[in-house]
Amino acid sequence: MTVIDIRIELKKGVADPEGSNTKKTLESLGFKGITSVKSVKCFVLDLDMPADEAKKAGEEYCRKLLANPVVQSYTVTVR
Amino acid sequence: MTVIDIRIELKKGVADPEGSNTKKTLESLGFKGITSVKSVKCFVLDLDMPADEAKKAGEEYCRKLLANPVVQSYTVTVR
Repeated sequence: MTVIDIRIELKKGVADPEGSNTKKTLESLGFKGITSVKSVKCFVLDLDMPADEAKKAGEEYCRKLLANPVVQSYTVTVR
Repeated sequence: MTVIDIRIELKKGVADPEGSNTKKTLESLGFKGITSVKSVKCFVLDLDMPADEAKKAGEEYCRKLLANPVVQSYTVTVR
């Protein structure tokens, strides 16, 4: 059993309305010193395979389903 | 400048339709050996304050805005 972490982030230069609205809302609540907020989508998967296979599988899931390569990049880490 | 990572997960026992639908869809694409998929919401914040203050600020953001304590738990880590 291997646990992998998949992080799907927006590529540089792609608009992140969720992040910028979160920043605005935090500021409207009175919080200071926030330079930027980036939203990231993560998945934690339990896989029934060894660690090296699991990392490759996670990358395959991103390519085939989870990430949009036009605007998103992904990283897969084995826990 | 401090970068913090905020991870907001669903508490144990709370339904995670995004995770279970992702699992179903991956399986329908022919992927085998997936025991579970959990969806997690992450934010990466650049804060203009030292690390110890930044961690406390991140926890405050979760309490005040980002997390719903009824169904979600959060972790803040300084990079």
